Amino acid sequence: MSLPLPIALDAMGGDNAPVSVIQGAELARQRFPWLKFLFYGNAFKIGSLLEKNAALRSACEVVHTDVVVNTGDKPSVALRQGRQSSMRLAIDAVKEGKAFAIVSAGNTGALMAMSKLVLRTLPGISRPAIISLLPTQRGEIVMLDMGANIECDANDLFQFAIMGDAFAKAVLNLTHPRIGILNVGQEEMKGHDEVKMAAHMLRNSKLSSNFHGFVEGNNLAEGTVDVVVTDGFSGNIALKTLEGTAKLVVHHLRRSYSSSLVAKVGYLLSRPALATLKEMMDPRKHNGAMFIGLNGICVKSHGSADALSFANAIGVATELAVQQINRRINEELSLYDVSAADNESPEI
Amino acid sequence: MSLPLPIALDAMGGDNAPVSVIQGAELARQRFPWLKFLFYGNAFKIGSLLEKNAALRSACEVVHTDVVVNTGDKPSVALRQGRQSSMRLAIDAVKEGKAFAIVSAGNTGALMAMSKLVLRTLPGISRPAIISLLPTQRGEIVMLDMGANIECDANDLFQFAIMGDAFAKAVLNLTHPRIGILNVGQEEMKGHDEVKMAAHMLRNSKLSSNFHGFVEGNNLAEGTVDVVVTDGFSGNIALKTLEGTAKLVVHHLRRSYSSSLVAKVGYLLSRPALATLKEMMDPRKHNGAMFIGLNGICVKSHGSADALSFANAIGVATELAVQQINRRINEELSLYDVSAADNESPEI
Repeated sequence: MSLPLPIALDAMGGDNAPVSVIQGAELARQRFPWLKFLFYGNAFKIGSLLEKNAALRSACEVVHTDVVVNTGDKPSVALRQGRQSSMRLAIDAVKEGKAFAIVSAGNTGALMAMSKLVLRTLPGISRPAIISLLPTQRGEIVMLDMGANIECDANDLFQFAIMGDAFAKAVLNLTHPRIGILNVGQEEMKGHDEVKMAAHMLRNSKLSSNFHGFVEGNNLAEGTVDVVVTDGFSGNIALKTLEGTAKLVVHHLRRSYSSSLVAKVGYLLSRPALATLKEMMDPRKHNGAMFIGLNGICVKSHGSADALSFANAIGVATELAVQQINRRINEELSLYDVSAADNESPEI
Repeated sequence: MSLPLPIALDAMGGDNAPVSVIQGAELARQRFPWLKFLFYGNAFKIGSLLEKNAALRSACEVVHTDVVVNTGDKPSVALRQGRQSSMRLAIDAVKEGKAFAIVSAGNTGALMAMSKLVLRTLPGISRPAIISLLPTQRGEIVMLDMGANIECDANDLFQFAIMGDAFAKAVLNLTHPRIGILNVGQEEMKGHDEVKMAAHMLRNSKLSSNFHGFVEGNNLAEGTVDVVVTDGFSGNIALKTLEGTAKLVVHHLRRSYSSSLVAKVGYLLSRPALATLKEMMDPRKHNGAMFIGLNGICVKSHGSADALSFANAIGVATELAVQQINRRINEELSLYDVSAADNESPEI
């Protein structure tokens, strides 16, 4: 690859596609002028959106396809029937070395299944996970899995810890990230066998000095550790509960402010302060979760992403590439005794 | 039982015991002047706290014991060694008909194990669950299990739905509570086998018209349904994430307000509005979770409860007794075909 560097975008994935994808690319181009965008999807729709944007038009390539993976499609169906879909073609571009990363706001299960099939997992990793940053009292922390693997065994959680450690080093610039396993209590006796065994494995691994122990739901927002390891079921519920609660508080705040004239004046004077809060809690600023553990960078955007949100997901993919995230994870993995029994990708 | 009605309190459970328990009882007495308090614990410590409070002294009875269940004790150890503990004696009082309910801020696992052993489960219920109210955009909703059962099968979740339905009818005065199962997506194909099977059972039961389907983490704060059913692992994580996030937002708000002089003035004018928010989100106002499914009312207070918080837990227990919660659940259970195979309590 040479400059401008190409990034593959599934132009048809997400509730607001292709508008959010094209406008998101335009926003991302302002931040990374050295990017080239490979749009996969309906060339007529994409073309009409590019009509008035000569600058973006000259920094992109459009690959036409009529096939789209729908939100409700089962991963198995998407795999079989979606070989010519915008999602699949965008993933293929990474596999073929035409793009350094793929971003999609489409069906999560289908994106995971397709990218796992096409890109394969890193050596020693049995299951990729969804990893993302969370806002906390102490700044951002890393959490995985956010929903790719509904049920995980101790070995999966152990591998997640290694990948989360490498991710935190690369993205948060930490030398010794503190790692915690999400559980219902901090005591060693708490939780089910999988978390207890994973904690045991971490305590007896080269990561032991970074391992903090178990953390609880409230420790997420408190930022007690830098890396939170959990299964995809709990991780997804925790993430969405966090987003929902932040919205609830803002909702009540707004209602409280309209309760009296004095409160309204107070609101006017407080606007800059509230704007800071709103910006910090804005889920659009935190959009873009990496499918970590794959032989290639694949970033999932929220399905409901708007242009700003999608631009942020492009930013995440680009920064991960700049940080050479997969080279770092491979280096980290080579230090640990991870089981390669079910490794699907012997070659890098 | 005759007036004043006796409630059994574990005076030694919790981080701030016995002070929080005695002062909490005093606060509760102001709201329910017809209560009589049975304090179980160190009579010397309790006595000295009652010294200056003649009114409370005349409305209570102190049963001395030196044995205390500690926070770190395993439930099995507490069961064996805690037969004379303040927690166990308070539970025994309910079994023996000396008190209409028991409240403790002590070790959750031990309280569950002891109360299950002593009080037994309701006919048709295999495992009791922790049920509590959550603040939402639409008012309060009911959620269970909050952490008693780390792993649950479909049958457990189905029984939780029946109990949650009865609880919402009794406590929230709803005639047709909407029931949702917590999951990683709303589509029927999402989640693990247990939630899918439980949803199938509900759709084919007499509760089907009340069954909304799957809900996600953000639906908690949105108040999408009245009753949220989940396993104890996910429920505990969701609850604590919600509490932690509310604190995070308030923390940032406070920091934003001190960022400039104008913001500080805005803060002064906004104080009443913010106080409303703070009160609504105050976890102390939501303290007190029932162990539902037992032959008797057992309410668990947060271990870190202060007096106000503990008083609220006493209030929860009292209101549940007034609402005859267990009679209602029994009536509800008799309508459904719940498996009584592992029912531990044939008699009521």
